[in-house]
Amino acid sequence: MKPILHRRRTLRDVAKAAGVSLSTASNALNATGRVNRQTRETVLQIATEIGFMPNALARGLLSRRSFTIGMLTNDTYGRLTLPMMAGVSESLVDHGISVFLCATNNDPRRAQLHLQALLARQVDGIIITGTRRDLTPAVELSGLPVPVVYAFAEGPAQTISFVPDDAHGARLAVEHLRSLGRSRIVHITGPMDYLAARIRAAAYRQICGDASEVRYGAWTEEWGYEATQAIFSRAGDRPDAIFCGSDEIARGVIDALRDLELSVPGDVAIAGYDNWEVIARQTRPPLTTVDMELKEVGRRAGLAMLALTRGEEIAPGVVELPCRLVIGRSCGG
Amino acid sequence: MKPILHRRRTLRDVAKAAGVSLSTASNALNATGRVNRQTRETVLQIATEIGFMPNALARGLLSRRSFTIGMLTNDTYGRLTLPMMAGVSESLVDHGISVFLCATNNDPRRAQLHLQALLARQVDGIIITGTRRDLTPAVELSGLPVPVVYAFAEGPAQTISFVPDDAHGARLAVEHLRSLGRSRIVHITGPMDYLAARIRAAAYRQICGDASEVRYGAWTEEWGYEATQAIFSRAGDRPDAIFCGSDEIARGVIDALRDLELSVPGDVAIAGYDNWEVIARQTRPPLTTVDMELKEVGRRAGLAMLALTRGEEIAPGVVELPCRLVIGRSCGG
Repeated sequence: MKPILHRRRTLRDVAKAAGVSLSTASNALNATGRVNRQTRETVLQIATEIGFMPNALARGLLSRRSFTIGMLTNDTYGRLTLPMMAGVSESLVDHGISVFLCATNNDPRRAQLHLQALLARQVDGIIITGTRRDLTPAVELSGLPVPVVYAFAEGPAQTISFVPDDAHGARLAVEHLRSLGRSRIVHITGPMDYLAARIRAAAYRQICGDASEVRYGAWTEEWGYEATQAIFSRAGDRPDAIFCGSDEIARGVIDALRDLELSVPGDVAIAGYDNWEVIARQTRPPLTTVDMELKEVGRRAGLAMLALTRGEEIAPGVVELPCRLVIGRSCGG
Repeated sequence: MKPILHRRRTLRDVAKAAGVSLSTASNALNATGRVNRQTRETVLQIATEIGFMPNALARGLLSRRSFTIGMLTNDTYGRLTLPMMAGVSESLVDHGISVFLCATNNDPRRAQLHLQALLARQVDGIIITGTRRDLTPAVELSGLPVPVVYAFAEGPAQTISFVPDDAHGARLAVEHLRSLGRSRIVHITGPMDYLAARIRAAAYRQICGDASEVRYGAWTEEWGYEATQAIFSRAGDRPDAIFCGSDEIARGVIDALRDLELSVPGDVAIAGYDNWEVIARQTRPPLTTVDMELKEVGRRAGLAMLALTRGEEIAPGVVELPCRLVIGRSCGG
């Protein structure tokens, strides 16, 4: 088949038929500049009548590439999503590709509406992201006409996902504590039904021993405070370090230790997880914590999407990306 | 002129010319279902040749309504933006309108790319939002072909903006403190170059007197801690209440008071600002704080956008929306 671009009606045809200048026709069709409403409508109608399509639309229809990527998230506060979106954007901006984020608020109807809107706007692909690795998306995503990539969430078989390597993150923190001479390390973390919490706990136990203490609870300061009080109120050996499943938990732990008149890191060394700056930097002492490199997770997801939209092949699977230990003062050393 | 819809080529024309069934033609054009790639391309080419436009595109071109709204933000963590986006979405979801968020990261080139992408995707309007009321958008927004609404940011003359009524928020906090018998109230807040900080400080001084103490600094715990130490280390009357410009500042203040062995709210009552849940609820004691009702700000911006896209007239100006006091335990009473 001949390239269709050569056959299509040009802007010149539209301008001529509408009796306007080329630049007016262009402005009307591309929604740029100042064009009187009546003129714009005439130009648009004539463009439709003669079968002309503005470039962005024609390019989308012909090449199936709109140079936009949709991102769906269930995150309502954006703490995890916006850094990832920045990474996605960073990988695509030089290719002239924009990223549109839609928030589903975990509402299936809203998710469906947004997904349809993204597809109707002919996005080149959809990146699914959310607040947890074992997220169940609020919409059915199999059989979509565009590539789907998962970021900070594991997709089903035959899809590609990018997630932080939580076992690596946990090892970084625990090995750091051990390298500083801490030997009685406990782990206070979030709910057991979070895959990431279980992965981190398993990595911690692999280093510290199967009988090492893991306290599952909630991702809150309150839980960190409460668990610490429980641990330090019982008889027997006291821990000399606590590896926390989140920076918020770490704050609660430090707060409890202060009330117990124990010093951090002197009596007890504390490692956090997340490197959520507003928490980690502002805690006294500033936290040593694991950064999940969310921007890099997003960047890799963006690059995978770029390859897929170009028709390149990618092996399906879950790609676990390394974490990074950020050194504060809560572990000493 | 006759309604153009009657003249346009139908799906039936496309199916016939391509030699495929109506449903295959529809699937190919709407990017739904399973259509073999070659068939899809043929259908798309024929659709272009005969001047057919899929409904979503045709609807966009003809009615100039795509049922999508673009949102541009400079917020990189999303704390302010995602709650507003939820409000925008809430006001539009029942009208079948989706919201696409693009993050500019304060980078003019990225902002320009995203803006162009949104316009090329024919969004019905653009909502500008960001991290501060006196935000300067990273792109030129005058003369856009679609309506622009500002949320949590003040637009130029002849635009419509929705912002929290910061004077109202400050009055809520200060009057609450006074109603509980506190008379020596100081105000610790963020940088003076933030319009919102100046508005709140002015409202506080209107109640407490022009000579009342305002300490401008940073939006951090560290600043709250430092300012509190300075205030309590000098001679003379000690304050019995501190109105803080943010919840983070309030946390730093409470931390400093604990180190000074002063009780909250017994010795000093503390009011925060933001109702940022992860901070406000988890502080000990939980903060009494001002909620800027960001979701409502977004909802109102969405409704204004809806009216504008329907061709309704709206009076330009800055609409200040009431705040709400959330009662914790940091003020007692």
